Amino acid sequence: MIIKKIGLRSLAAGLLTLFFWGTTSAQDKNLVVRIARIVIDSAQLENYRTALKEGIETAMRVEPGVLTFYAVYEKNNPTHLTILEVYANTDAYKSHLETAHFKKYKTTTRDMVKSLELVDAAPIELLSKMKQ
Amino acid sequence: MIIKKIGLRSLAAGLLTLFFWGTTSAQDKNLVVRIARIVIDSAQLENYRTALKEGIETAMRVEPGVLTFYAVYEKNNPTHLTILEVYANTDAYKSHLETAHFKKYKTTTRDMVKSLELVDAAPIELLSKMKQ
Repeated sequence: MIIKKIGLRSLAAGLLTLFFWGTTSAQDKNLVVRIARIVIDSAQLENYRTALKEGIETAMRVEPGVLTFYAVYEKNNPTHLTILEVYANTDAYKSHLETAHFKKYKTTTRDMVKSLELVDAAPIELLSKMKQ
Repeated sequence: MIIKKIGLRSLAAGLLTLFFWGTTSAQDKNLVVRIARIVIDSAQLENYRTALKEGIETAMRVEPGVLTFYAVYEKNNPTHLTILEVYANTDAYKSHLETAHFKKYKTTTRDMVKSLELVDAAPIELLSKMKQ
């Protein structure tokens, strides 16, 4: 009887693992990844960074489908930024473009951005142990 | 007396907040961020991806100071990769370069890499809610 119980528990655990494994894989397949390579007008750099941070923090806080915003600058060219964005799926990405905070960011920064290259990307590995 | 207690609690909470804020800022200041822009020989792409994934997964598992490896490819140019790496500090980065798994990755992939651009970067925002 004890063995039977353990057997059932193992089966249940196995099914749960399969379920979550399936969920994770499906989620990964739907992820939308974008790389933005941006050059900012040096005179506007501080203003741009402020607007960017506000836009990112709001998106991360209020949009469940906005999964990652990694924004970095090049040490030798602080006006050269790379932003790596990950969305849960296409709907989450489209919905982000319609938010008030994204539109505010775009309007505020329009004249600060000297060039913008947007690249559609897809994950090979996305691993992080950083705490938020 | 109750007010005095609440006052002390608030003070303690405030000091704790300051302490953790300070810790976080200090940690962020030490972070080492690298962007690698890599072009792979198309005939070797699958082999390269296998070697890269093995190197990343080992580094993330065995090196506490390796905080993030985000490796993505461009959808329109699958041989064009961007890897964003975050290390806890300079020592963690230097120690990573000396590991057996990193050396194995470098040796294995030497003839698969057509070009490699390494960029020293620094964080503006690094926010993610993805589960590992």
